Amino acid sequence: MSSKIQDEKAREQLIDLAAEFYDQFAGGKIPEMKLPTRTKSNIVFDEDSNVWVYGDRTSTRSANSVRGARKLLKAVYTIDFLAKQLDEGRSSTLRELYYLSESWDNEEAQFSDQDESNQLVEDLEIVSEVTREDFHMRPEESGATLMGPLELREQTRRGEREIHCQKDVGEGGYQIPNNPDTIDFLDHDIDFVLCVETGGMRDRLVENGFDEEYNVLVVHLKGQPARATRRITKRLHDELDLPVVVFTDGDPWSYRIFGSVAYGSIKSAHLSEYLATPEAQYVGIRPQDIVDYDLPTDPLADSDINALESELTDPRFQSDFWTEQIELQLDIGKKAEQQALASRGLDFVTDTYLPERLTDMGVL
Amino acid sequence: MSSKIQDEKAREQLIDLAAEFYDQFAGGKIPEMKLPTRTKSNIVFDEDSNVWVYGDRTSTRSANSVRGARKLLKAVYTIDFLAKQLDEGRSSTLRELYYLSESWDNEEAQFSDQDESNQLVEDLEIVSEVTREDFHMRPEESGATLMGPLELREQTRRGEREIHCQKDVGEGGYQIPNNPDTIDFLDHDIDFVLCVETGGMRDRLVENGFDEEYNVLVVHLKGQPARATRRITKRLHDELDLPVVVFTDGDPWSYRIFGSVAYGSIKSAHLSEYLATPEAQYVGIRPQDIVDYDLPTDPLADSDINALESELTDPRFQSDFWTEQIELQLDIGKKAEQQALASRGLDFVTDTYLPERLTDMGVL
Repeated sequence: MSSKIQDEKAREQLIDLAAEFYDQFAGGKIPEMKLPTRTKSNIVFDEDSNVWVYGDRTSTRSANSVRGARKLLKAVYTIDFLAKQLDEGRSSTLRELYYLSESWDNEEAQFSDQDESNQLVEDLEIVSEVTREDFHMRPEESGATLMGPLELREQTRRGEREIHCQKDVGEGGYQIPNNPDTIDFLDHDIDFVLCVETGGMRDRLVENGFDEEYNVLVVHLKGQPARATRRITKRLHDELDLPVVVFTDGDPWSYRIFGSVAYGSIKSAHLSEYLATPEAQYVGIRPQDIVDYDLPTDPLADSDINALESELTDPRFQSDFWTEQIELQLDIGKKAEQQALASRGLDFVTDTYLPERLTDMGVL
Repeated sequence: MSSKIQDEKAREQLIDLAAEFYDQFAGGKIPEMKLPTRTKSNIVFDEDSNVWVYGDRTSTRSANSVRGARKLLKAVYTIDFLAKQLDEGRSSTLRELYYLSESWDNEEAQFSDQDESNQLVEDLEIVSEVTREDFHMRPEESGATLMGPLELREQTRRGEREIHCQKDVGEGGYQIPNNPDTIDFLDHDIDFVLCVETGGMRDRLVENGFDEEYNVLVVHLKGQPARATRRITKRLHDELDLPVVVFTDGDPWSYRIFGSVAYGSIKSAHLSEYLATPEAQYVGIRPQDIVDYDLPTDPLADSDINALESELTDPRFQSDFWTEQIELQLDIGKKAEQQALASRGLDFVTDTYLPERLTDMGVL
């Protein structure tokens, strides 16, 4: 969709929200806004789509109390700001919105802290079914990069840029913009998408030419991935019909990184369809790798053990594979980093580990 | 310097180190290595060059104890690895070096933890006077980006890339490589370099076209800047004779970010001449701005107050400007973020704050 049409659609959906309040007033009703209840108990793992979604319970924000009325007032001021921002083709960060509210003429509409404005923007995302990116709200940090045989066109506010993510970039790669929906995929030679947790491993793969040899698009996750990184991964899978595999450290926190790429997170359950790639597969480091390759390890800390135990009951990890791996890890009491593969030489990961594993998985 | 010649020089300086041990053996002496003592008490602020440097005290690593002999053995194995790496035109991360040592034939030479290998590489940097980047040791994360009227050539292992940091990049900008000494500056229209702490403010400046309107190269610091970011900032200043200004949040931690750009840090005192830009100037947020512009603030936490008090005795902040500002901040008990300027509208920072301040400072 062209970005102008998308902006107009987002703007209309916001105005519709405000119009609803107006109609309620006009009809003699106390204005209110209905939202799915956003507590952990109302978030369910949808077995069909394999992602987190909200359950059936709803909460109502009503103007029938001073507190509730103030919340709706803030919503209206925010809608007004966002609609104007879209109209002018501008954007802003969540933090700027919070500070900007200090300049609003009605003091009652100003936010008392940033949690409040963040929360409201999430509420508006849910009710309007428009994502924050389509409101032109930027995150504070974007961050991740792409490297591989992909030619894309990015719509920047300075015009279009056509960039090949190997030939037109330095060793740092192509920097994913805050809103990756400004990107069109033009052409590619990609066989699969490899999401990598750490910068050290990303650089190893690029130095060893893994992206060139196997026609891989290397996506740097940079730890827990930003929304922009998860979004472009999903688009690569859906639009180019590419397999996605995820390569992280071998510890419970890294399994959660995989989980957020594949199944979404509780915090952004309303965005699972926009951000999650349920078909993504986990490459490693697997606890079995620690045993098979005799990798250098660190002992599990108490917090690691607790996290692993909680993953055993996490619906995202209810498969024979994960149960077996997590129980093995609790049994051996060890964890290993991606870069521990270097104990078998700097080329082991690209000459042996990944080709063997990806062949087993049917990706190669 | 071409990278081949630079690699050869680094390699020679490493081999010279090992040769020294050999000569000591051959001359019937117990091998040893002399280093400046790397404790806080032996680091002094050099008033002439305005950066941190080591004092006169030295420590000796001698093979006259098992512990000392083991340290020198590890140094020799590491030199061997680094020399081979340079010979083959390859590179690796500090973490890979640590893991790789597990594959060394002599168990006594293997590192017991990563602190030990990190420390040894720093020692070798100091003794050989070659930087880690010239050993081809990569950091785990690089990170920051450039946006502005600069055309550069990056020597990648896939050949040269010529990139204009406005016309050939997306909104995310040009990703600085791990070793920015692979970059040649080809052409530019830059009037000054503006280093910005937060991603939100970096995006604001780019969205508002500040880099285009004022011929600014915007360097995103991303919090405490990586070595690569500080290095390229210094090179821009030294080689292109450009003023460098630093724009951060208004709190003691951000003043330290400015300090590390301008004066170097205690931890990397041996690199001050390579990384620090003593001519860099501080734009803001200044405590005086909090008062003058009535910015939204947070109260100082106890840790903020302690940090400010320690800065009052920090040689890097011994100027009337800093003393006045820090004392004012302790007095008002408040701190403010860069993005708090948005309380005066999203364009205030680019239409009013920066132009006025930079005119005052003589940069515009």
